[in-house]
Amino acid sequence: MLAEIITIGDEILIGQIVDTNSAFIARQLNSAGIRVKQISSVSDDRDHILTALKEASKRADIILITGGLGPTKDDITKKTLAAYFGVGLVENKDALDNVQRIFKRLRGEDAELLEVNKQQALVPENCEVILNKNGTAPGMWFNHEGKIYVSMPGVPFEMMYMIEEEVIPKLKSTLKLPFIIHKTILTAGEGESYLANRIADIEDDLPTYVKLAYLPKLGQVRLRLSAYGENETLLKQKVNEYAARIIERVGNVVVAEEDIPLEKVIMNKLAEKGQTLSIAESCTGGYISHLFTQHAGASKMFLGGAISYSYELKESILGVKAETLAKYGAVSEQTVTEMVEGALHQFKSDYAIAVTGIAGPDGGTEDKPVGTVWIGVATAGKTQIKKFTFGSKRAQNIERSAISALIMLNTLLKDSGK
Amino acid sequence: MLAEIITIGDEILIGQIVDTNSAFIARQLNSAGIRVKQISSVSDDRDHILTALKEASKRADIILITGGLGPTKDDITKKTLAAYFGVGLVENKDALDNVQRIFKRLRGEDAELLEVNKQQALVPENCEVILNKNGTAPGMWFNHEGKIYVSMPGVPFEMMYMIEEEVIPKLKSTLKLPFIIHKTILTAGEGESYLANRIADIEDDLPTYVKLAYLPKLGQVRLRLSAYGENETLLKQKVNEYAARIIERVGNVVVAEEDIPLEKVIMNKLAEKGQTLSIAESCTGGYISHLFTQHAGASKMFLGGAISYSYELKESILGVKAETLAKYGAVSEQTVTEMVEGALHQFKSDYAIAVTGIAGPDGGTEDKPVGTVWIGVATAGKTQIKKFTFGSKRAQNIERSAISALIMLNTLLKDSGK
Repeated sequence: MLAEIITIGDEILIGQIVDTNSAFIARQLNSAGIRVKQISSVSDDRDHILTALKEASKRADIILITGGLGPTKDDITKKTLAAYFGVGLVENKDALDNVQRIFKRLRGEDAELLEVNKQQALVPENCEVILNKNGTAPGMWFNHEGKIYVSMPGVPFEMMYMIEEEVIPKLKSTLKLPFIIHKTILTAGEGESYLANRIADIEDDLPTYVKLAYLPKLGQVRLRLSAYGENETLLKQKVNEYAARIIERVGNVVVAEEDIPLEKVIMNKLAEKGQTLSIAESCTGGYISHLFTQHAGASKMFLGGAISYSYELKESILGVKAETLAKYGAVSEQTVTEMVEGALHQFKSDYAIAVTGIAGPDGGTEDKPVGTVWIGVATAGKTQIKKFTFGSKRAQNIERSAISALIMLNTLLKDSGK
Repeated sequence: MLAEIITIGDEILIGQIVDTNSAFIARQLNSAGIRVKQISSVSDDRDHILTALKEASKRADIILITGGLGPTKDDITKKTLAAYFGVGLVENKDALDNVQRIFKRLRGEDAELLEVNKQQALVPENCEVILNKNGTAPGMWFNHEGKIYVSMPGVPFEMMYMIEEEVIPKLKSTLKLPFIIHKTILTAGEGESYLANRIADIEDDLPTYVKLAYLPKLGQVRLRLSAYGENETLLKQKVNEYAARIIERVGNVVVAEEDIPLEKVIMNKLAEKGQTLSIAESCTGGYISHLFTQHAGASKMFLGGAISYSYELKESILGVKAETLAKYGAVSEQTVTEMVEGALHQFKSDYAIAVTGIAGPDGGTEDKPVGTVWIGVATAGKTQIKKFTFGSKRAQNIERSAISALIMLNTLLKDSGK
């Protein structure tokens, strides 16, 4: 069973907003055993929408459409769908009741509907209305020449409600769907091509209904196994079997056997043991701390830290010696060592990270060019320091420094856990 | 001149990643005067990619493709492009040199290329190679039957480099593009509909070739004037004229007359005066510091700060009194006051920000529900404190806290500047 997603709206095509709706819908469809063949974003243009619908209907059984259902002039999805199906628009009572309900909630009991509000209840006459609990634009379900079409608003929380509560359950009850089983293995510290080389024979051995994908990102590679078919037990068994073989083979670089970010792996390990972390950041300027604190539950293991951008703060908060800074400079093995041990000691944490470097684009010297970064990780009695030479782009230097620090800490945790 | 973007990769179609590349590329194309007709995400499947290319070439003059250029088996874009153009693959010397250069940088001088790495230098024989400074997969430029095709890696920072440094400049020099003049005015503290109301007459007065867009985001609204046409001088003149009228009208909420983020406005003001900032973050966990330090030149005005997640660090780094924490709690007017004044004093900065709150989803109480945030900004002799009640979503609470703190600091700077 194949689906396509069509998102309608000029704001996507000028890059003003990132289309996050498609990824959400795709995830929901996948979990329900429906594969997404294509996602297309098209403009608020009648002919273009018609073409997109025709093309999608050639490839897919289910076409999900978002956007263009608002009350203003540039919202033309409804009229265009009516034209596509060759039908007229009719007022739908349930949709009108819903518009009135929402309108009164927002505007008060006495508020009178404007003409544009009433038009929200007009729908193509061949459609089944899907209730929009969170907004005035009704969702619409069409059965047409053996295909299913569903049109939803583009406002994320209106669309999300409809997909989860209405569309997916209806698809499940209407169609006989296959199963899709995914399993992701997160690795760090080895390149995509090396990994592929190490597991080439396992990959060759995969049955046709199991696929392996490599998803690389800054020092990490996610390996994703996906199995499609009718027999859920068999799919799970095969995915687990091949995952186990891969994990056995490349176990030295596996950091998680599920699809979570690296800092979450570390968070979970520390929280489990009741241990804590502090961070002393110079060139990463708060980014590593943010990576941890963006996740719920960070306060269980993260005590805090220092952003010691200036020499003075390196001394006053972290206890880096003035003579160390004077002799070796802020970006040096000696300084990062004092920073990470200072954090461990001053903040009384079980583990610490410290990063100092030249993020750029200015501030480089011949000895220490932009991209030079010293990273330290430490726990009582054990400090590990590494020097990195990244590139010239500030944002990437910050991100790579952060990921490298996380990889180093994860290794230290692993070693300390033995 | 019309373009289409095709992103290739199953990870998009299963919703594992959100396609942010398309929005980036769309923005860049738009700024260069090229309109995007459609964005399509397709699977790593030969026939599907071929169909997508054919369909795009019917609608657009320029087809930009990302993804599927890695060294592993699921990366089939290159072979598929060769098939599409009816040509073979050849080894490209520049691409091979680049693979070697990157490889040695990562693996050391003695590292030997694997066969899969060498294959990265194979390209369709009709292509012009685009150097990939940040990775091993070469970009490829094709001229074919009057259309331009460009294939780029899907890794964002490899693609971004290519688009900014190579593709857009080459498109500009190859094609005769119309002029697009944008001017953005950043406002803070007034809602979109109120702003629209205040400048309605100016908006009505705009010539047809100048458009005004409202881009609201968390307490800020960007007003973007865009003029399209052949006469660059006229476009600039008109855009400046209308910008000046808008700025005169709503000057009280204008924070910048260019398209820069709020923290950059603050950075510039402080750097100009040779003044400094320190930050004490609790619930924002490093995010505000990261907002500043992501920008080049932050070290000119940012001294650093504390991420005081635990009570202990609030006391030891910032000098918050133990009895204040015990009596009023960490999320209180008293604590945030001591935090912001502590930062100002301990870190010896001219200005300070402090934030303490409950980001959620856990940790709320009846008195202090999730989303309760206290923010303080201070300079010598002047401290301003505000309480905010945001919502239940952690990521949004962190972002709203950060933006609110920036708006408060910007106001304090304005007042202090008088």
